[in-house]
Amino acid sequence: MRQLLRQRMRKTLPRDFVSRLRSVVGDAYAIDDEETLLRHARDETPNLTPSLPDVVVRPGSVDEVQAVMRLCAKDGVYVTPRGAGSGKAGGCVAVYGGVVLVLDRLNRIRVIDRDDQVAHVEPGVILQTFQEAVEAEGMFYPPDPASLSWCTLGGNVACNAGGPRALKYGVTGHYVLGVEAVLPTGERIKTGRQTTKGVAGYDVTSLLTGSEGTLAILTDITLKLLPAPRFVQTALAVFPSTEPAVKAVSAMLAGGVLPRTLEFMDKDSIEAVRVMNPPYRFPAYAGAALIIETDGDSEAGTLEALERCLQVTTEHGAVDAFLATDARQRRDIWASRRLLSEATRKIKKKKVSEDIVVPRSRIPEMVARTTQLGDKHRLSTCSFGHAGDGNLHTQVLFDDDDELPRVEALLDDLFGVVLALGGTITGEHGVGLSKKKYLPLELGADMLALQRRLKDAFDPAGILNPGKFLPDKLALHAAKADAAGR
Amino acid sequence: MRQLLRQRMRKTLPRDFVSRLRSVVGDAYAIDDEETLLRHARDETPNLTPSLPDVVVRPGSVDEVQAVMRLCAKDGVYVTPRGAGSGKAGGCVAVYGGVVLVLDRLNRIRVIDRDDQVAHVEPGVILQTFQEAVEAEGMFYPPDPASLSWCTLGGNVACNAGGPRALKYGVTGHYVLGVEAVLPTGERIKTGRQTTKGVAGYDVTSLLTGSEGTLAILTDITLKLLPAPRFVQTALAVFPSTEPAVKAVSAMLAGGVLPRTLEFMDKDSIEAVRVMNPPYRFPAYAGAALIIETDGDSEAGTLEALERCLQVTTEHGAVDAFLATDARQRRDIWASRRLLSEATRKIKKKKVSEDIVVPRSRIPEMVARTTQLGDKHRLSTCSFGHAGDGNLHTQVLFDDDDELPRVEALLDDLFGVVLALGGTITGEHGVGLSKKKYLPLELGADMLALQRRLKDAFDPAGILNPGKFLPDKLALHAAKADAAGR
Repeated sequence: MRQLLRQRMRKTLPRDFVSRLRSVVGDAYAIDDEETLLRHARDETPNLTPSLPDVVVRPGSVDEVQAVMRLCAKDGVYVTPRGAGSGKAGGCVAVYGGVVLVLDRLNRIRVIDRDDQVAHVEPGVILQTFQEAVEAEGMFYPPDPASLSWCTLGGNVACNAGGPRALKYGVTGHYVLGVEAVLPTGERIKTGRQTTKGVAGYDVTSLLTGSEGTLAILTDITLKLLPAPRFVQTALAVFPSTEPAVKAVSAMLAGGVLPRTLEFMDKDSIEAVRVMNPPYRFPAYAGAALIIETDGDSEAGTLEALERCLQVTTEHGAVDAFLATDARQRRDIWASRRLLSEATRKIKKKKVSEDIVVPRSRIPEMVARTTQLGDKHRLSTCSFGHAGDGNLHTQVLFDDDDELPRVEALLDDLFGVVLALGGTITGEHGVGLSKKKYLPLELGADMLALQRRLKDAFDPAGILNPGKFLPDKLALHAAKADAAGR
Repeated sequence: MRQLLRQRMRKTLPRDFVSRLRSVVGDAYAIDDEETLLRHARDETPNLTPSLPDVVVRPGSVDEVQAVMRLCAKDGVYVTPRGAGSGKAGGCVAVYGGVVLVLDRLNRIRVIDRDDQVAHVEPGVILQTFQEAVEAEGMFYPPDPASLSWCTLGGNVACNAGGPRALKYGVTGHYVLGVEAVLPTGERIKTGRQTTKGVAGYDVTSLLTGSEGTLAILTDITLKLLPAPRFVQTALAVFPSTEPAVKAVSAMLAGGVLPRTLEFMDKDSIEAVRVMNPPYRFPAYAGAALIIETDGDSEAGTLEALERCLQVTTEHGAVDAFLATDARQRRDIWASRRLLSEATRKIKKKKVSEDIVVPRSRIPEMVARTTQLGDKHRLSTCSFGHAGDGNLHTQVLFDDDDELPRVEALLDDLFGVVLALGGTITGEHGVGLSKKKYLPLELGADMLALQRRLKDAFDPAGILNPGKFLPDKLALHAAKADAAGR
């Protein structure tokens, strides 16, 4: 049925369209050879049906972005913006074909300003490249999604990316002061400001942040920077089970300490990592673990805060604790967390990786219910993630595509539990294609209708990143036409 | 001309409308006696022409808010929501009459949750009442606008209120996880979530935050809380002039310390306060002052950070410094800042108080240009505010209303300088009526048009808080009709 809809929605590009694109961006940057199209047919979303664009366009300037957008707007050609393709929800996949607009050539760090602690960047800058440039100036840009070595800042803003440090420092949206963008109708707008404060007009910056490329194409981003914290301390604590670990998390925060990171691994995650011989040897009876990291501008203060955290873990029944005393031990601790992705692949060939969020205090129930759902649907699961935020990366593992219907059934149950516990279906990956089905459950009909009206305020013709997120306007028309034709 | 437009836009309430309102909220809560109308004809904006509503309605529940909104939507009656009336831009003034909807009876703190560090509150809760309740649970809610003893949380969200602690902790918007609201069309929506993370759908929460009551009526707010910082240290440093003070601010932040507060007073502000005999006696040669406050979870760390700040001030030529060693001395330091408002009233009978923002490094230029503009327009000025954010509360002082044209001329120049320096016209007060004229200068035509479309997505009939912020739809019609009739 999805396949049918996709075919129905596909349109042939207008005559000479690719040559018109080439006259804007140059022959080398409007590409329609099969190999390039294939490379742009998917992102990092597991089990996603690839979808070929008609042409991949790589503009080299804002003017070119605008010119391309105007060409597409004039002829009603779909445009799907794309950064590095590191997304995990299919947000940059051109489900109905058309143009995939890759922003990788807009990759200049225009300004890093120490006095005002702001940066101006183009959307194609790689996050890690940016962080290194910022750190070289003695400053700090906290967002740290797992794909930081290759994801782009434009994609980070489009998806409002998070990461472990979000507990203390917030997600990408907390650092976006303003953007420049090209609207689907071809106008260029400038939102927000260069200063951290400002309330002039509606907050369009926040509306674009996390809009997954459905409202506008980002061409420039102003980011807030922080003073670099001068000291970081890391520890790992092991618990007999999930419940005391989560209670310890709440107790630490209630006790007045705000670690920059509170990463959680459940029993199944620890078992998976154990097979990989991690540098830190988990004790045999480990039923849950926390990685705790504090930072600050005082060495004594940072260590004192971490020691208070470890004391709380002991009071809550931690059975082992390990405080890193040097950089190597810190890396060893993080290695156990970083091995997880590879570790789950050793258990089963395939997986889906969700990023559900529940109120922190409901993590034990969520983890227990996830294990129960695994049993019910005869699938392996494990849960790990950002305990301080209640953001769990729930993994469902399987070997063969014929298990997918059971995986889908498990996910239907899982999202039901998430919403019943007061949570949200996605903490940092986004809705895209893979959670589109569940969005109405979270938002409700009136809110969906409002969001549809917001989309229309930016994109009345519905040509920007169609098929994502919300019930698609053109898809609705097509479905209606289908129904009428029958 | 404004007066004419207001008269043109006023409509007589439909027959029996007030009695229909009374049947919804009870006779005592739909009030149209002159004294009540007069009390709701203005807010704290200086020099604002009062505007009488036709009726003041104080609903006692969300159901009543919705019922009132539906009555108004049905008959096209204007609705202007209002909290405590502490706003400084005229945002809650019913310029075209109609209903003023006061949310003061929705004043329950529904939940303060220690484990998840969130609170659920109704919009009419007084900020200080809330902060005290949160602190009693060992937690912390940072936003601290000057009106904290009487402003409401609903108003804080509607205006995205700030305060001195915003430097480290951000403004109100950083704490709003989600809201419940009634749309101008009568539907109830729920935005956001109970968790700190979440990216399901467009960020309508942020769009409502700072929308100044023009998009929806807030009926419930979910706020993020923080662990209470356990230690606070306060100091005051005096400089010979503005420039070294501001350079010291940049140097502190670049040096890796993030104080929670960095308040600035210029020479004219110090002179004004000196007359009031403040507990801290400013030296005769004081040309600028900074109040610096650090906080954290370690006593040693907090003190160390403040001492590093003071060292930086010394390196930048501070001529005096005073580190508070107890609560009384801390109060003494803050008294000099708090006396400012009264102090300026001693100099001249009247004032306008702006809240411009410029990039931090441009403060010296902004302060100097403000003094020059005062000379040019023969008016007294002074500048103080939140130096860390670049947010200056520029005061223009005068004695008599016949000086107002010169005040307006000065402000026209002032906002021109602000925008030329890369700043914004309002950091925390909002646009409302008093900065409506300047908003197009900051946003530009395409952005204004987009914001108008966003307004329409919420309020197609244009009945919620008309006349504010954006060129008004109905006002535009009226103006067109006027032009056509001529």
